Amino acid sequence: MRIGILGSGLMGGKLGTIFARSGHEVIFSYSRSEQKLKKLAKDAHGNARAGTPREAVQEADTLLLAVHWSRIDDVLDRAGVSASAEASADGLSAKVVITCSLPMNDDNTELVVAHTSSGAEELAMMIPKANVVSAFNTVPSEVLFGVYESRNKARRPALIYCGDNEIAKSVAAELIRDAGFDPVDAGPLRIARYTEPFALLVAQLAYEGKSGPELAYRFEHLKG
Amino acid sequence: MRIGILGSGLMGGKLGTIFARSGHEVIFSYSRSEQKLKKLAKDAHGNARAGTPREAVQEADTLLLAVHWSRIDDVLDRAGVSASAEASADGLSAKVVITCSLPMNDDNTELVVAHTSSGAEELAMMIPKANVVSAFNTVPSEVLFGVYESRNKARRPALIYCGDNEIAKSVAAELIRDAGFDPVDAGPLRIARYTEPFALLVAQLAYEGKSGPELAYRFEHLKG
Repeated sequence: MRIGILGSGLMGGKLGTIFARSGHEVIFSYSRSEQKLKKLAKDAHGNARAGTPREAVQEADTLLLAVHWSRIDDVLDRAGVSASAEASADGLSAKVVITCSLPMNDDNTELVVAHTSSGAEELAMMIPKANVVSAFNTVPSEVLFGVYESRNKARRPALIYCGDNEIAKSVAAELIRDAGFDPVDAGPLRIARYTEPFALLVAQLAYEGKSGPELAYRFEHLKG
Repeated sequence: MRIGILGSGLMGGKLGTIFARSGHEVIFSYSRSEQKLKKLAKDAHGNARAGTPREAVQEADTLLLAVHWSRIDDVLDRAGVSASAEASADGLSAKVVITCSLPMNDDNTELVVAHTSSGAEELAMMIPKANVVSAFNTVPSEVLFGVYESRNKARRPALIYCGDNEIAKSVAAELIRDAGFDPVDAGPLRIARYTEPFALLVAQLAYEGKSGPELAYRFEHLKG
């Protein structure tokens, strides 16, 4: 799979690294410095390189959107796929866009979209030709390498995903599996109205709890 | 502990039964039929009896509120503790009120309070002298007996709770432990803005998923 990373911060940097180590071809893009993108690509020790958002979108079939909510417009614009961009939004036609961007305010203290919509649904309206899946936003970045390194253990932690396109969802599920998690299909994209607040619950436990931020979760069936 | 159950439906009936079997004294109240309350009390095989909401509030120090959101006003009124009731709302002074009522619409399809508030916070404003804890609403009723019966196993499922009063929270944590779960403190009552949508995520997985409704969850720390 050729995967374009839009937003190579904590989340995008680590997930891109993990995808590259899993054998995928990765293009890191959209960081404060070109230098950082090159370092990420080098340190990934896999088939990874630095690029622009435009290259990431043009060359990859699957994109990971991992920017702060306030940067969504800018990254889509630089990628040439925003409604206002000169190029047509057709650039994302039928592409899989996996978003882990939570719709947070600038202080990262609360959701700016919730209840009657979700960040994932808002994004899907901005890029209607893309197949949006919400995933990788319900665990802290601090747990990612630990989960990846434990991927051969019997009991994997879960990772929730949701979306409206089944092919895109199967792509997301494959990447979730590659990252060492057990993919849990939560249904259509509108379920992001529940998964995004759940992400904030996990963040609360991870960053305000006593045991540190390396937190994952799992679901379990018990017979009554 | 003497526990008054306000709302003896699926959730209240099962939790009251579990609390009675754990050695607590339980008063079941507020069901469609007096007969059902008596049967619940008899089948609990513990120190349990049927009563009115007013008796439950007067005689118990800890109350479990387990009614549909549309019945909150009515049950508080019958218990004599609503703002509009003839008796004073002082009847709940310093009592622990554990709520598992989610603020659902009449069709049970969506939350009517979310994002900028939560059912638990709205309830706390209705009964300001009580110490409200939100708990037992993030797992389906179908899993309760299974978890209780597995309570001596090494790895218990988690149960999230939140509230603003530490003493009330320790009471809730004790009951969560009695029910076979590992209590997970999610912080102040406002975190119910995240736990209530999480409850709907769990319900989605339980009722729309393939593995049946006996679903529980667990959090896990991994070193990176």
